[in-house]
Amino acid sequence: MSMRKAENIDEVLLDLLCAKGQLVAESLRNSKISDVDINSKNKGPYTTETIKQVLQALSDEEFKNTEKMTKVYLHSRAFQEENSVIHVGNELIGKQQPQFIIGPCSVESHEQVYRVAEEMSKRGVSLLRGGAFKPRTSPYDFQGLGIEGLQILAEVARTYNMSVVTEIMSPESIAEAYDYVDVIQIGSRNMHNFDLLKTVGKLDKPVLLKRGLSATIHEFKMAAEYILNEGNKNVILCERGIRTYETATRNTFDISAIPILKQETHLPVFADISHAAGRKDILLPQAKAAFAAGADGIMAEVHPNPAVALSDAKQQMDLLEFAQFMDQLHHFLNRFFVSTSLK
Amino acid sequence: MSMRKAENIDEVLLDLLCAKGQLVAESLRNSKISDVDINSKNKGPYTTETIKQVLQALSDEEFKNTEKMTKVYLHSRAFQEENSVIHVGNELIGKQQPQFIIGPCSVESHEQVYRVAEEMSKRGVSLLRGGAFKPRTSPYDFQGLGIEGLQILAEVARTYNMSVVTEIMSPESIAEAYDYVDVIQIGSRNMHNFDLLKTVGKLDKPVLLKRGLSATIHEFKMAAEYILNEGNKNVILCERGIRTYETATRNTFDISAIPILKQETHLPVFADISHAAGRKDILLPQAKAAFAAGADGIMAEVHPNPAVALSDAKQQMDLLEFAQFMDQLHHFLNRFFVSTSLK
Amino acid sequence: MSMRKAENIDEVLLDLLCAKGQLVAESLRNSKISDVDINSKNKGPYTTETIKQVLQALSDEEFKNTEKMTKVYLHSRAFQEENSVIHVGNELIGKQQPQFIIGPCSVESHEQVYRVAEEMSKRGVSLLRGGAFKPRTSPYDFQGLGIEGLQILAEVARTYNMSVVTEIMSPESIAEAYDYVDVIQIGSRNMHNFDLLKTVGKLDKPVLLKRGLSATIHEFKMAAEYILNEGNKNVILCERGIRTYETATRNTFDISAIPILKQETHLPVFADISHAAGRKDILLPQAKAAFAAGADGIMAEVHPNPAVALSDAKQQMDLLEFAQFMDQLHHFLNRFFVSTSLK
Amino acid sequence: MSMRKAENIDEVLLDLLCAKGQLVAESLRNSKISDVDINSKNKGPYTTETIKQVLQALSDEEFKNTEKMTKVYLHSRAFQEENSVIHVGNELIGKQQPQFIIGPCSVESHEQVYRVAEEMSKRGVSLLRGGAFKPRTSPYDFQGLGIEGLQILAEVARTYNMSVVTEIMSPESIAEAYDYVDVIQIGSRNMHNFDLLKTVGKLDKPVLLKRGLSATIHEFKMAAEYILNEGNKNVILCERGIRTYETATRNTFDISAIPILKQETHLPVFADISHAAGRKDILLPQAKAAFAAGADGIMAEVHPNPAVALSDAKQQMDLLEFAQFMDQLHHFLNRFFVSTSLK
Repeated sequence: MSMRKAENIDEVLLDLLCAKGQLVAESLRNSKISDVDINSKNKGPYTTETIKQVLQALSDEEFKNTEKMTKVYLHSRAFQEENSVIHVGNELIGKQQPQFIIGPCSVESHEQVYRVAEEMSKRGVSLLRGGAFKPRTSPYDFQGLGIEGLQILAEVARTYNMSVVTEIMSPESIAEAYDYVDVIQIGSRNMHNFDLLKTVGKLDKPVLLKRGLSATIHEFKMAAEYILNEGNKNVILCERGIRTYETATRNTFDISAIPILKQETHLPVFADISHAAGRKDILLPQAKAAFAAGADGIMAEVHPNPAVALSDAKQQMDLLEFAQFMDQLHHFLNRFFVSTSLK
Repeated sequence: MSMRKAENIDEVLLDLLCAKGQLVAESLRNSKISDVDINSKNKGPYTTETIKQVLQALSDEEFKNTEKMTKVYLHSRAFQEENSVIHVGNELIGKQQPQFIIGPCSVESHEQVYRVAEEMSKRGVSLLRGGAFKPRTSPYDFQGLGIEGLQILAEVARTYNMSVVTEIMSPESIAEAYDYVDVIQIGSRNMHNFDLLKTVGKLDKPVLLKRGLSATIHEFKMAAEYILNEGNKNVILCERGIRTYETATRNTFDISAIPILKQETHLPVFADISHAAGRKDILLPQAKAAFAAGADGIMAEVHPNPAVALSDAKQQMDLLEFAQFMDQLHHFLNRFFVSTSLK
Repeated sequence: MSMRKAENIDEVLLDLLCAKGQLVAESLRNSKISDVDINSKNKGPYTTETIKQVLQALSDEEFKNTEKMTKVYLHSRAFQEENSVIHVGNELIGKQQPQFIIGPCSVESHEQVYRVAEEMSKRGVSLLRGGAFKPRTSPYDFQGLGIEGLQILAEVARTYNMSVVTEIMSPESIAEAYDYVDVIQIGSRNMHNFDLLKTVGKLDKPVLLKRGLSATIHEFKMAAEYILNEGNKNVILCERGIRTYETATRNTFDISAIPILKQETHLPVFADISHAAGRKDILLPQAKAAFAAGADGIMAEVHPNPAVALSDAKQQMDLLEFAQFMDQLHHFLNRFFVSTSLK
Repeated sequence: MSMRKAENIDEVLLDLLCAKGQLVAESLRNSKISDVDINSKNKGPYTTETIKQVLQALSDEEFKNTEKMTKVYLHSRAFQEENSVIHVGNELIGKQQPQFIIGPCSVESHEQVYRVAEEMSKRGVSLLRGGAFKPRTSPYDFQGLGIEGLQILAEVARTYNMSVVTEIMSPESIAEAYDYVDVIQIGSRNMHNFDLLKTVGKLDKPVLLKRGLSATIHEFKMAAEYILNEGNKNVILCERGIRTYETATRNTFDISAIPILKQETHLPVFADISHAAGRKDILLPQAKAAFAAGADGIMAEVHPNPAVALSDAKQQMDLLEFAQFMDQLHHFLNRFFVSTSLK
């Protein structure tokens, strides 16, 4: 190989990378170029480090190409262009109709859940949430009513023709909970509990996956991938705020995550505005913002008497606040949902 | 003083704190109760620590009451209930009409600013931003055109009957910049530059104050207080994202800050969506979310040819993208601004 | 009750809180003081809010006192003043002798573990770590050799008379892993996996509990409490860096957590310097700092050939680096461990 | 150019990058390879994107090489291999002798400073700190005694033959402060106040530069570069904790920053342990850790009566605590400073 003119050498390189790309790739795959080789040959101006990086980048790229051909991420728009629509009872989640998951933080009594459901029912909300198994920082805090809580949820849901959304914290609880639950929630603290993700990935029920306390968007998508990869295609993503230094809110609601997740995945995206804020005085603007940013639905906590709630007393709306919240939100949503979609 | 029945002691305490509150307050102010006093008297069950805290709390509260009577924060709704409305050229900022501050990150040339302003003009946007003094991490990075940049901004603004919004980084620059600038921007890195805050507090031009990189909402409000306290009442707050671990966006756009600032202050609140995201593919949903959450306006970066921009190339819209952005945003805003306000 | 002089009223209050504390406490417990009561009586200057807070604070304090008497946290120095010492093989963890947990990030082959153990053995290090079940962000990344990996660890440990420290990710894996493992590691991503914590709390093997990615020190202690509360007293805490905005290191090593945990708990505290840094060029100063701050031991990753490691290539020392690291660290430790303790 | 065997193509590429590197570099610099060129030639398997990136990387690298030759960062070890040693009074900072900067948070009175200095003097500490201009979140908080505070510091320093370290917050204050100050401190909130950095860069007094509240290590180094670039070579870096979600400490002390800064710069590195912790019960282990990690000195706050301090009451040691702190720290330092250096 001879290089007569400097002006041509970029063409040689270009030719190598373009026209002979396949040969370069095979050659790099089969050879072992050592530092010694490079050092002995290198006359500058590129550093040996740079040359190694270029060769490595080409080698990696070829590897990724191979990988990409066989393994596009299941959550990605590259894998599925159109939005996933998930059926829960009579609701279609992800089908450009704003959805609401409402209920108390913890199930405390039949009466408590009944009163919230009654109010939801009046407003056409049919996705009922409530915590029966509660992930609590302290082992001495109220841990939820367990299976009894699930029975209360199921009974109230049957009365009002609703669907039950509730958190399951371990693979072992799934068997006993299965019949009472319509959507299995994976909580923020369990987003990286890979065994649990794999277990719910084998079920035939939809999963609402919450973002981890300080998970990146990438990690969040990959947690969904664990579920999808086991066969369960019905995954709903739920942004719920991330942990930062700011103390005015319980978490920092990462509104940007909503459009990014909508762009990069085909999965429905919810926002849990109660946990994002940790205070109920800004729930309405947060809900509006979530829908304006492209969310498919929101999740919020309502309790007949928040002051005596066994958990999260400060962030739960009472029934009147909930009624006003829904009125004002519908007023907002009706304006721009008449003839157009959210996105 | 005798305590015959346990049932009555809460009334004695209540009586002390309520009916005799003024006496308690005076008494605490004049006395010095030492640990030794408490220890020697304390028969439980309250710890000496608790008792000290209660006495201290009452003492502090009384002090705060005194302070509150003379010094309510100037930024607070307690000081001024109605929204502050700030006049900039023909625009009224804070008067429930969505406002836009648009322009390139850095002023690079007359041609560059002229082309952006032309496009703004077509859409009725009259607040022109552009950086002449640039706060850059490295002293060797492009530091802005300085006074020449201001002259370009002012000239283009005159042509199109616009107002100039630009960052001033030091008290010294103000004199030379004064005549060219309509709104003085205090950048994120200078939110805690108290001398600069005091200096602009003495001017008769509006100030756009950006939230610090990792400032709490409380610190942000108090930075505004520094300006207001010097006499300048025309302060616009600007949320621009906070620094977190997330790398999908340049900063984490703290959408909750908008309703909190609107509730707690009477000042107009903007959102700088370009810096909050650091990527232009989610500007539209971010802008919608900002307005839905109650923002009075947004700030965004537009450049005729972002690829060659001297700073922030990735986050600036080109002219066509800007046109589409405004069309889609107006479509959204028109729906819910017809008969109602943002808030 | 009469209050003749303002100068005396603080003494009345003091007397109430000190000498009659028990009566106040009982009285508050039995009474229901409503807002109406306070409002009707309150003549200022304290706000009704303040008075309610004071009464509530006293009421809470009394409640806490009662609670404390029956339920002191098991991890606290209040529960156990002297340091817990945990026996693992021939090592005594927590007994003021610096300890080392060393090994590859992932178990890849018998040869790989064997070579690391050989080097450890020369330096008297007998706690062998290695990942057999790997928590990976992507389901397509190398997930560890599983039970085969545990068998390799156990076999090598037997050869060199070492103890095996390895991560277990789910209650189900424990049965099959039990015989191969001497210390069960709970990884950062599972610090809030409460079912797993409860399960290992019922075992008779020591548990090394890592701090969650962004767990507070309080949450970390309470996660340990979940284990202790089930009966397993052998818990080792392990600081491993927290997630922040800083990118120069993989995590931000929270050195302050070490003295705080040593003060507030009786449990041994380790520092995983490899995960804290994510880069091997600062392992030595980090190790020195950890011991200087009071750590009972450190954890670090060593691999015979880090460049080809299946995980965490950048942060693992090779055998020569490990040898130098130990030499320099011993040189440091010998100086101040001769006649005094770490703390 | 012909490629006969796949096995050889990596050698052709290697040869191009190594032996003909200079030609490649020149050629790339002079040519404009467009997307069209690449697309028309590209036969796979590399994407056009990858090929552009490789060419760009080589082009950038060549550019960086050129740039490096003319502009190595002044703070870097590449610019100056040996440690910078800074003379302050009789002290040599950066010369492997542990140094201490001690004093009250705020200067409050002559008596207050005098008593601290007296205690420092007994222990051979001669770098006296104290705040005269205080950066306070609220404009209504105590702002420092100003010039009067500086006079107190200077007078006490003269009495005890000490040097004064104090914060200056604006270019304007420098002239009046100049004669009273030996080391100018740039506070955390002003690390990004570029005008101030440039101003102190023109002085002939040493500068103690504190890391910003949430500045990256890179930004911290570049802030130092602003000072160095103006001619002032006497810059001391001071890690003081960064803002995180953790509330057990005021800031999170980023111990890893110390060895990283020592490796990457030739400047002395201090740790402000009082601000890093915000609580005085862990100052001793933090100081030990700082020195063990390679710090040249520490900074700590001492007040004769912290309970009545006008700022930062909780984090200041009283005189007795300071005496004990120094005794225990010297006991630690003497062990490993006898025959060896810190680093």
